[in-house]
Amino acid sequence: MAKAKAAAPRERDRIVIRAVDEVATAVHRAIGAKRKPEMDFPVRALSNVKYDEKVGYFEIGKGKAVRTLTVNTAKSFAQTLLMMEFSKKQIVDNKEATKREAYYISKNWGDAAFDEQAESDTVMDDVEAMFSAWGVNREMMRFKAEEHGGSVAGALTIVDRHRKSGDEIRIDCTKFGSGAYTVPSNVEQLRFETKAKFVLVIETGGTFDRLNTEEYWSTANCILVEMGGVPTRACRRFIRRLMEEVRIPVYAFTDCDPYGFANIYRTLKVGSGNAAHINQFFCVPKASFLGVTPQDIVDYKLPTHPLKEIDIKRGQDALRNDPFYEVHPKWKHAVEQLLKMGVRAEQQAFAKFGLDFVMDEYLPRKLKDPKKFLP
Amino acid sequence: MAKAKAAAPRERDRIVIRAVDEVATAVHRAIGAKRKPEMDFPVRALSNVKYDEKVGYFEIGKGKAVRTLTVNTAKSFAQTLLMMEFSKKQIVDNKEATKREAYYISKNWGDAAFDEQAESDTVMDDVEAMFSAWGVNREMMRFKAEEHGGSVAGALTIVDRHRKSGDEIRIDCTKFGSGAYTVPSNVEQLRFETKAKFVLVIETGGTFDRLNTEEYWSTANCILVEMGGVPTRACRRFIRRLMEEVRIPVYAFTDCDPYGFANIYRTLKVGSGNAAHINQFFCVPKASFLGVTPQDIVDYKLPTHPLKEIDIKRGQDALRNDPFYEVHPKWKHAVEQLLKMGVRAEQQAFAKFGLDFVMDEYLPRKLKDPKKFLP
Repeated sequence: MAKAKAAAPRERDRIVIRAVDEVATAVHRAIGAKRKPEMDFPVRALSNVKYDEKVGYFEIGKGKAVRTLTVNTAKSFAQTLLMMEFSKKQIVDNKEATKREAYYISKNWGDAAFDEQAESDTVMDDVEAMFSAWGVNREMMRFKAEEHGGSVAGALTIVDRHRKSGDEIRIDCTKFGSGAYTVPSNVEQLRFETKAKFVLVIETGGTFDRLNTEEYWSTANCILVEMGGVPTRACRRFIRRLMEEVRIPVYAFTDCDPYGFANIYRTLKVGSGNAAHINQFFCVPKASFLGVTPQDIVDYKLPTHPLKEIDIKRGQDALRNDPFYEVHPKWKHAVEQLLKMGVRAEQQAFAKFGLDFVMDEYLPRKLKDPKKFLP
Repeated sequence: MAKAKAAAPRERDRIVIRAVDEVATAVHRAIGAKRKPEMDFPVRALSNVKYDEKVGYFEIGKGKAVRTLTVNTAKSFAQTLLMMEFSKKQIVDNKEATKREAYYISKNWGDAAFDEQAESDTVMDDVEAMFSAWGVNREMMRFKAEEHGGSVAGALTIVDRHRKSGDEIRIDCTKFGSGAYTVPSNVEQLRFETKAKFVLVIETGGTFDRLNTEEYWSTANCILVEMGGVPTRACRRFIRRLMEEVRIPVYAFTDCDPYGFANIYRTLKVGSGNAAHINQFFCVPKASFLGVTPQDIVDYKLPTHPLKEIDIKRGQDALRNDPFYEVHPKWKHAVEQLLKMGVRAEQQAFAKFGLDFVMDEYLPRKLKDPKKFLP
């Protein structure tokens, strides 16, 4: 995981420029020597992934696709090189572009202009996967997603820098009242200071709002992060960067359904298959699962809904194809238990026992014994 | 628009309690007099809406649905009364519940428990519509949406209150670095201080991020609000409340397509048909449309995409059925022009001319003459 530690900003820039220069030089040399130039791209699929609990996240395997310059590949070959050049230019100019802006910039590339943003996104992902061998991710290449997302409140001071002057900006996340701090789309420059005991990452805006309004972060001395469903890349990277600076536990609090387990929690902790080349930067291997568990449904007699067909399919897929569940028998058991029960429960179901029950009863009881959390 | 001005917190609570008590007393009296009790609900549909430019928003018409207590309506009648009671209890306890929590609370209502959240949401909307005659909205009843949403940065200080101590919390929106302030799901208690010249409300996270990162709010002395598509109720109410305290122009900056015109801008400015009973609280009648306009596509030779079938349908619907476009010939012309051109353009299309073009050229040129903005 050495590569995963965030490098200092200038060092990050140097790494990207080195990657661009090395790939471009190799292409240039091949042409000079009258050989066909080639570029190698790791295969991005669950089939090309391995999971070792000690490493902590899905790693990309050795499968490679080679793109050789031919008549058929001339356009995408040129687009790949132009995307690399644009990335380097952004670093030199100290700029950043969204993925959509990058697509529009390509309209100046003559015949190599992209017709659809989906095409430019794919080329960007390919370059990122190729550059992952250098320890580069898309954010380092100065490309960011359209959406940011993720809200933060509680015992945390975020240290940002003024873009032009470089002056420090200190953001105290206890000072937002009923509001919160919005995670920006690029979090690479942020630093963190906290005396909190743990981070509670929360699936729904409703539960986040409840805990924030009641200042649960003060009672429990913690940091609250709202994911709003599957966390955006920026939100995952934010939690990951926080973890690199402050070594406190991360507890996930989601609905009790296969979506909460496999799509939200598993992605947060070990990453996803189709973006395995970047999991080293985005995963939070030390996260553990506070709830809601299938056993909670039984213990608290929670109101439930029947599992939908898609829930059942997701649960079965997790048991069949997902290396994460293979490695963790406790999780396998939990998914099996849920499928057998045939129901799901939302984290707000505790409201049945009163609006404060989640804060006054459920969380304190759980937090007495984090060792019992699902891994 | 007298009713629309935000009442002080205690006064707001009193208004809701009065509404609950008056409706409940009428029901109680009818039963005492052995008459069948009734409740009146305004019809919530575009067909029961009128638009007068001087009023500034879609107003609900006189159409009413009467719900009489019968064997068939016993359950929904009871649910309506229990929802009113729950709202009153929340005010007494100084609490707030999300719509989903309210659904779970109903699980304690015995036979009157809701089976699905969709049912409890509908009853809540009905009560809100009924109470609109008293000047009550759902937020005043202490119910909030699951999602909040909307990010804010720039020349604005938000004044919130500490929930328990009542102490003032001052939030300076120039101090978030690359981040921003997340609008909470209930904004009723917020106050505002600003010397900004205008508010720029922006459709996409990408454009918001660009303008925020480059601190455009400092250059132009303005407030930036990211809507992230159609603004959430909280985001609309935030802008509206801001407008009640500081009388500066609101300029909308969206993509150039029927969705940006009719779904985003029209909803922001005059509201929607199916929630016409609350438009008095949520609309920003003085908003005007900075762009992107169909004429901008021509003038700037913007990269475009062909209109999809759904875009064309939306545009045609606007021309046929929407009172807003009937009243504003300039808008009618703009939609006709776009349909004729057969293309749409995104606000990030300006990136073709360089990442800073939107900030250094487009916005300053436009802002020289706001009178030319579409109404």
